[in-house]
Amino acid sequence: MVNNSSFLCCSLFALILQSWWGRPPVDLCGSFLPATSWQSGVCCRKLHSGADGSKPSPAAAPDRRPFSRITREDLDSFRKIVPGRVITDPDLLESSNVDWLKSVRGSSEVLLRPQTTEEVSKILKYCNGRNLALNPQGGNTGLVGGSVPVYDEIVLSTALMNNILTFDGISGILTCQAGCVLENVSIYLEERDYIMPLDLGAKGSCHIGGNVATNAGGLRLLRYGSLHGTVLGLEVVLADGRVLDCLATLRKDNTGYDLKQLFIGSEGTLGVITAVSILCPRKPKSVNVVFLGCETFEQLLKTFQLCRGMLGEIMSAYEFLDSECMRLLNTHLKLPNPISDCSFYVVIETSGSDPTHDGEKLHNFLEEAMNSSLVTDGTVATEDSKIKALWSMRERVTEALTHDGFTYKYDISLPVERIYQLVTDMREHLGGRAKSVVGYGHVGDGNLHLNITSPAKDPALLAAIEPFVYEWTASCHGSISAEHGLGLKKRNYIYYSKPRQVVALMGDIKAMLDPKGILNPYKTLPDDLK
Amino acid sequence: MVNNSSFLCCSLFALILQSWWGRPPVDLCGSFLPATSWQSGVCCRKLHSGADGSKPSPAAAPDRRPFSRITREDLDSFRKIVPGRVITDPDLLESSNVDWLKSVRGSSEVLLRPQTTEEVSKILKYCNGRNLALNPQGGNTGLVGGSVPVYDEIVLSTALMNNILTFDGISGILTCQAGCVLENVSIYLEERDYIMPLDLGAKGSCHIGGNVATNAGGLRLLRYGSLHGTVLGLEVVLADGRVLDCLATLRKDNTGYDLKQLFIGSEGTLGVITAVSILCPRKPKSVNVVFLGCETFEQLLKTFQLCRGMLGEIMSAYEFLDSECMRLLNTHLKLPNPISDCSFYVVIETSGSDPTHDGEKLHNFLEEAMNSSLVTDGTVATEDSKIKALWSMRERVTEALTHDGFTYKYDISLPVERIYQLVTDMREHLGGRAKSVVGYGHVGDGNLHLNITSPAKDPALLAAIEPFVYEWTASCHGSISAEHGLGLKKRNYIYYSKPRQVVALMGDIKAMLDPKGILNPYKTLPDDLK
Repeated sequence: MVNNSSFLCCSLFALILQSWWGRPPVDLCGSFLPATSWQSGVCCRKLHSGADGSKPSPAAAPDRRPFSRITREDLDSFRKIVPGRVITDPDLLESSNVDWLKSVRGSSEVLLRPQTTEEVSKILKYCNGRNLALNPQGGNTGLVGGSVPVYDEIVLSTALMNNILTFDGISGILTCQAGCVLENVSIYLEERDYIMPLDLGAKGSCHIGGNVATNAGGLRLLRYGSLHGTVLGLEVVLADGRVLDCLATLRKDNTGYDLKQLFIGSEGTLGVITAVSILCPRKPKSVNVVFLGCETFEQLLKTFQLCRGMLGEIMSAYEFLDSECMRLLNTHLKLPNPISDCSFYVVIETSGSDPTHDGEKLHNFLEEAMNSSLVTDGTVATEDSKIKALWSMRERVTEALTHDGFTYKYDISLPVERIYQLVTDMREHLGGRAKSVVGYGHVGDGNLHLNITSPAKDPALLAAIEPFVYEWTASCHGSISAEHGLGLKKRNYIYYSKPRQVVALMGDIKAMLDPKGILNPYKTLPDDLK
Repeated sequence: MVNNSSFLCCSLFALILQSWWGRPPVDLCGSFLPATSWQSGVCCRKLHSGADGSKPSPAAAPDRRPFSRITREDLDSFRKIVPGRVITDPDLLESSNVDWLKSVRGSSEVLLRPQTTEEVSKILKYCNGRNLALNPQGGNTGLVGGSVPVYDEIVLSTALMNNILTFDGISGILTCQAGCVLENVSIYLEERDYIMPLDLGAKGSCHIGGNVATNAGGLRLLRYGSLHGTVLGLEVVLADGRVLDCLATLRKDNTGYDLKQLFIGSEGTLGVITAVSILCPRKPKSVNVVFLGCETFEQLLKTFQLCRGMLGEIMSAYEFLDSECMRLLNTHLKLPNPISDCSFYVVIETSGSDPTHDGEKLHNFLEEAMNSSLVTDGTVATEDSKIKALWSMRERVTEALTHDGFTYKYDISLPVERIYQLVTDMREHLGGRAKSVVGYGHVGDGNLHLNITSPAKDPALLAAIEPFVYEWTASCHGSISAEHGLGLKKRNYIYYSKPRQVVALMGDIKAMLDPKGILNPYKTLPDDLK
């Protein structure tokens, strides 16, 4: 599919490639459990039993807290607030009770589908008064068990809150309800010559409110920065039903504390985001993709530096995979290596406003990278299908892993010069116990996806991986969750990345904003804070 | 000084201009009171008396709160914590008691100069125990009376906390103590081929900790975004001396709530920032500047859109001034108009990685802007001195205003398409009461600097301006402080930009983090929250 010739033979203008809009979803790094590992009615308390099969792991859910049980009167009250949008049919509730990885499940009996902020406010006020727990839910594409109920929490879906409210074509500031699907917003913007500052593999399902609640990273973070910078305003309903209107549409506003920031990445535990305003970049006129090979990770990092210097403002992605990933792509998906065999592979994308200039910059960079022997081989794509083929070498690693066996997946942030050492050290640490130990991810963001496979679920292997992986990360002052959040699965590992005093203050803020703890209980904060 | 010829005559490569590092400070929009308007010992309670001379304005300080008075024993205790760095000499305290606009003054009798976070922690723990109020102080370049004591608060200076702690040349992440002067950090980075993501006129004096505490905007916000996106970590000492270690050096970290965000823009009222980690962009290899004229503000906005589309990723500034500003520059500073007379003038700057490409983009943009009659005239600079001359047309407006009379200054954020209407409406509203009503500022950020002069301080004029200007801003959902913060002067105007429930929650957070209210009292939050 992909031309194997050296990129140096390519015409400069052949570098001017198609836009990236059509490419398939990127990997999402949650752990796909076999369908048989959970069953209807088995709640996620059983998630991750310990190595000896008896001691629960820190990922397991704690006991149900003493929230009220829902009554017929409660349902009647909800029917008055959201008439016709109170779902109790178990079949219809099924997809809200299970995460899309099918790794955790709750047993909620009620799904509420408000359309307005006022309805959300009334629901929360009622639930807070009755001590009923709620699970706010967007597109339910989360990877850490944060987006589904753990027990019988009421599911509050934002799915019907899907209106775009305003768009300013001069400033590029969009305001929309929280339930807008990311892809729909992206299409709306592209028609107006703008793009969203974030792009995710799950964009066909995920909601912008959920993206903000989890502080989603994704493909464009390297270029456009995090949501803490691009989100300009939020409307949030607090646990007691108060509506917090921080829905500014201004790039600059220094009137008091920037409270909206608290809710970005709080995973629905501090309030329900009902509307978002966000600063959108102009749509690039030119997008190029190249695929390179390096012999050492040090060369890959030097190439990154060269790339930042020579591509500068047009660099929009610098992703990597190792030779083990390539082996799995070859073996399980029959994807041929588009270049000669190397230890590491890099996918570089540029996005700019002038196709000729972008092509020239890329040519000059590639020439320098080859002349200085940082890069061993490389190729560029000139047609739509070939661009997709190059991207698929990075994006289909997750799929290849599922064919390799049961996969233990980690989403780690590290100082960029250390990110591959964790893979090397893990390989050495595990010796022959793992089937494959592979590394890939976002070099530009210092974000490693470390994946370890075994023929089947293997508690002994898990015990060898954890807490080793977390301790290693902590020793480098890294983050045990770069972009996925903590949710249910990782809440008790928070101390590997945050000091106790910081976590204690998070608990104080939770207690202040949600004193009864009804919002997304058992998530984000560790059990010892309850 | 500046060539008056049409830019279309310039060679493309003449567009390749010098770097911007050497240019003079930009305007800082505080209100310079005449030196006689304050005297030693006159505290800022007298700031802004009302139109009738008796009723205090919302900008005036409230009564002193019942903090303890400092004793000899307190001084002895401080001398043990920071030996040799307890300043009580009134002459040495003078510059810490007065803001650099000389618009407000306090009467502090003690200045503490810690060198380490541990010392800051001990000081705060002691003061909290003794109920002694503190005024954290960086470079004291604030414009809203936030950086000096109001009464006898102890001044806690970060001036001796000026070490760069780490710099990662691959990721561009810098960690430094809070007292590093912005310009010093900038020089350090430039030597390593990086720049700070913010640049301010006050950079020779301001501290990075103070920049973060006020969420400084400045010249590079259009390109690199706000500090909420670029600051990756903070170390903060809370009122009771607890050290909050959020000093991550990672681009991505989704482990719990992002607490550092609370302190960005909190003006020292929630904690003392002692260290900062920040993501730094690569130093651009090419910087260009042009000066254009438009006949209407609508054309100026259309030119902005064209500029965003055609200059795209290399645009780094889009500033404007109106013809009234030009008149003041001509009259008071004898600066000649570098182009023909127009209603509006624009300064555009590009920063990129390839001088040839940047020059071509600029040429194409200028050709299109002229051909479509959006722009009436324009010029480019080809030498260092001419670049500075072009920039000075924008930067010296503040200086020209001081020669025009007493100046009432407003720093307003608005939807970009409305920013000039406030100037027009204000002119009409004031009729002949003002000497000059001028508008200039950051179009790209939707940030207007509205300035109104009169021959002398004029309470009746002030009463005509306020609350009109705030009500107008509120009616457009704008911000009454775009980048300067609220400090002492604007704290009671917060409700024009933030709803009561949001302000009330700010008060809850203040009460949680600083229950005795010892940190920078009388600032940021309105008096009705005390």
